[in-house]
Formats: sequence, structure tokens, C-alpha cells
Amino acid sequence: MRRIKVRVAYDGGEFYGWQVQPSLPTVQGLLEQVVGEIEGKAVEVAGSGRTDAGVHALAQVAAFTLENPIPLTNLRRAINRLLPPTVRILSAEEVHPDFHPRFEAQAKTYEYRMLREEVCSPFEWPYVHHYPYPLEEDRMIRLAAVFTGSHDFSAFAAADESDTAGKSKVRTIFSSVLEREPGRLIYRVRGSGFLKHMVRNLVGTLLEAGKGNLAELETLPPKSGPTAPAKGLFLVEVEYGE
Amino acid sequence: MRRIKVRVAYDGGEFYGWQVQPSLPTVQGLLEQVVGEIEGKAVEVAGSGRTDAGVHALAQVAAFTLENPIPLTNLRRAINRLLPPTVRILSAEEVHPDFHPRFEAQAKTYEYRMLREEVCSPFEWPYVHHYPYPLEEDRMIRLAAVFTGSHDFSAFAAADESDTAGKSKVRTIFSSVLEREPGRLIYRVRGSGFLKHMVRNLVGTLLEAGKGNLAELETLPPKSGPTAPAKGLFLVEVEYGE
Repeated sequence: MRRIKVRVAYDGGEFYGWQVQPSLPTVQGLLEQVVGEIEGKAVEVAGSGRTDAGVHALAQVAAFTLENPIPLTNLRRAINRLLPPTVRILSAEEVHPDFHPRFEAQAKTYEYRMLREEVCSPFEWPYVHHYPYPLEEDRMIRLAAVFTGSHDFSAFAAADESDTAGKSKVRTIFSSVLEREPGRLIYRVRGSGFLKHMVRNLVGTLLEAGKGNLAELETLPPKSGPTAPAKGLFLVEVEYGE
Repeated sequence: MRRIKVRVAYDGGEFYGWQVQPSLPTVQGLLEQVVGEIEGKAVEVAGSGRTDAGVHALAQVAAFTLENPIPLTNLRRAINRLLPPTVRILSAEEVHPDFHPRFEAQAKTYEYRMLREEVCSPFEWPYVHHYPYPLEEDRMIRLAAVFTGSHDFSAFAAADESDTAGKSKVRTIFSSVLEREPGRLIYRVRGSGFLKHMVRNLVGTLLEAGKGNLAELETLPPKSGPTAPAKGLFLVEVEYGE
């Protein structure tokens, strides 16, 4: 038996999120189907965490256990041949037998893309939150930095996060930076882990500050403003120890 | 009556090409519907030329005549509000009353994108021809330059170009360059005009040269190799005199 770790890119607009759902297309569901086809029996594919419907991944991390002795390069190619082009295995490596992509993850990085130009190109539209209205960008940049550190992020979790009731909602943000790029605002956040909807709620709160709301910008504010749309969000990287 | 010239971007993967076709989604059909809705009666939208199903446009040029006195900025916004996000009006300006985007075009530029990396990202897949196999790129670069100048391009026209039978197939290519970019080959061609399928057939011929076929690379070869896939092709710009 071999434990295989893979890095996976996907266009979230094509899926009902990462996690298996009966009779809906999900990335985990598709991978379990394709890897199971190669193995000749049901295979469980574990991810580093869920992504919501519409959220994209540049490099999600997943793992599964195989008996099939197929070399890693051939395995990657065989999986990609069976997947639609909206999901790609970027790399495959063998890891220790009890590797779990969620429990061993040490950091995750997300990126949220906001387009500030008046007209949104058809080629960018599925991958940005188009917000061409006035924003006090300096206030947003100041607030983004305030998210850094260890905080109880309960206020930024999805209301329906019932499966984690009683669990700690403290998370550590290693870096939280809003940057101006030509015609764009890019929010990059790297942390120990994230609650459901947390990044999109942080962005919704940044947008509230940009609209001139939230008088106090020196401490973590309450969640404020709607959850930002999924299509601007990318899971960029999941990091593991050596 | 005002004659309006617009620059239009579209994702060709969403349409059966530019030209109106009964009961199929086309860019021209959609624009005529939306502009007609604003004008309150049928409006004819003329383009600088057709693009095939699947071919993208960064800036196609079109024109139509309006009685409606709506200011240009409002017109652009109103059209974009009624269009799906897969088509965008980038700019609108008033031009002389008999402006025709096809007859007055002085040059067109196309770009064809080939991805050479083994794995094609889900985000790039709709917009490149993925060709990860060996190619003698230096031969392709040499041949691309040979296309420059005035030639009879009959051999590179679509077999079914019956509507132009008897018309000259001589076209002038002002520049024709194949460039290496990291993991990519980009073909850029600027010319007085192009026959149906011509750019995709030029690219198919470049690929044949890259595979080691076509012994003679000093003169215009016969069309060779299949028509390259539409999804790698972008209409980049249409130029007009002052």
C-alpha cells in the first residue's frame, strides 16, 4: 500500500465545492471516481480542507492510498486523462503511510481578487469580484493588517458552522496584506487555518471599511458586510513541515 | 441618426462564432438583440469580419446606426447591462455616418497561443492550444517569418469558402512572428485582411514544420497539417485610418 499526496488545481465555477455531495459535481467526488477507476475499487480521497462552491484552487492538497504499483508520473497522467480539463493534478508524490492533508497542514494561503476597473473583461469575469465603485482603499489596507495574529474569529465564521460547535474558533493569521495592482485590489492571507467562509467574510469586512463604515480600525472589528462572492477567491498553497 | 463604432471583447467558447445564425447564440446576434432593445426597433450591427466558433476577441470592432440620443457612456453601460458577462463593450464612439468596420479596416492583428507545458491549468485551458509534444521550435520561427509579404493564400483558406469564389485570395501580411514565452509559443500576425481559417491554417502549417515535416522553409509552403483548434486564437486589434 502506498500513500500518495497530490497537488490539485481546479476551476471552482464548475463545481459544487470540494466535498462529496450525492449527485452533484464536486472535486472530491470526481477524484474519488477517477482514482477508484484506476485502483479497481473504491478509494477515499482526503483534502486539506473544503472549499466552497465557486472557490478556485491553484494548488489544493489531497491524499489517498493505493495498492496499484503504477509509477507516480504515469499515475498523474492517467488521472489527468480521466478528469475533465477543469481539474488538473499538478504533481504526485509518495508520503508516509498515515499522512493526512488536513491534520498535518501547517499553513494555508488564500488570495482574493477585486477588479476596480469599470469594464470587466469576459476572460477575467469568472475569477474576480468586480467592484468598480468608490472605495477608501487606504482604510482597507490599514484594516487588513489588523487581522494579523491569533484571534477568536467566531464572528467571521459561517452562521451554519454547526459541525464545529464547541470547538475553538481561534486561528492564527501569519500575514494579511491588501495590495494595489493596476486596476485591482489583491488580498493575500496566510494562516494556520481558516473557518468556513472566513476569508470571504474578512474581505466583506474590508469592503465595509472601504465604504467608510467601521469607525474603529485599530482592533479586530465584528464581522461586517456581506460575505464576499466566491468567484474572487483562490486557495493558493497548503504548506507542510519537512 | 448617429453612427456608433464599438470595440467588443468576447469569450468565443460561449458562442457559435460572430455571425448571426438562426436559433444559435452568436455575438452579432446578441448585439443586434440588445441594441435593438435600446433603440426600440431592429438594428443591424456590422462587424470588421467574422470570427469562427470558439475564436476569442480582445477587441473586435462593430458599428450600428441609432436614432436614440443616449450619451455614449450611458449607451456603453446600458448595452453591457443587457449583455451576458461573456461579451463586453470596451468603448463606444461616434463616427462618420457611412463608417463600415469591414470595408475601412486597414489592418488586423491576431494572436495564437500554444501551451508547451505538460500540464495545462484549468484556468488556461479554454484559451490555449495545449501541445506538450516535441517541436523543432527554431524551424517554426523561421517559417513564420516567410509568411510576411503579399501572397496568394488560397491554400490556407477554408475549403468551403464558396462565397468568395472568383475573388482575389491575395492578402498582405505586415508582420508574422512566432515568439517563445516561458512554457508557451505565441504567434502574432498583423495583416491587411485574412481569409476564413487562414490564421489557424498558418498555425497548423507552423506545427507541421515543428514536427520536422516541410523540407523547404524558404518560400510559402502549401497548407499543411490540420487547421489549428479555434480556442487558441484571439482577434487582438482592428486598425483604421485617421
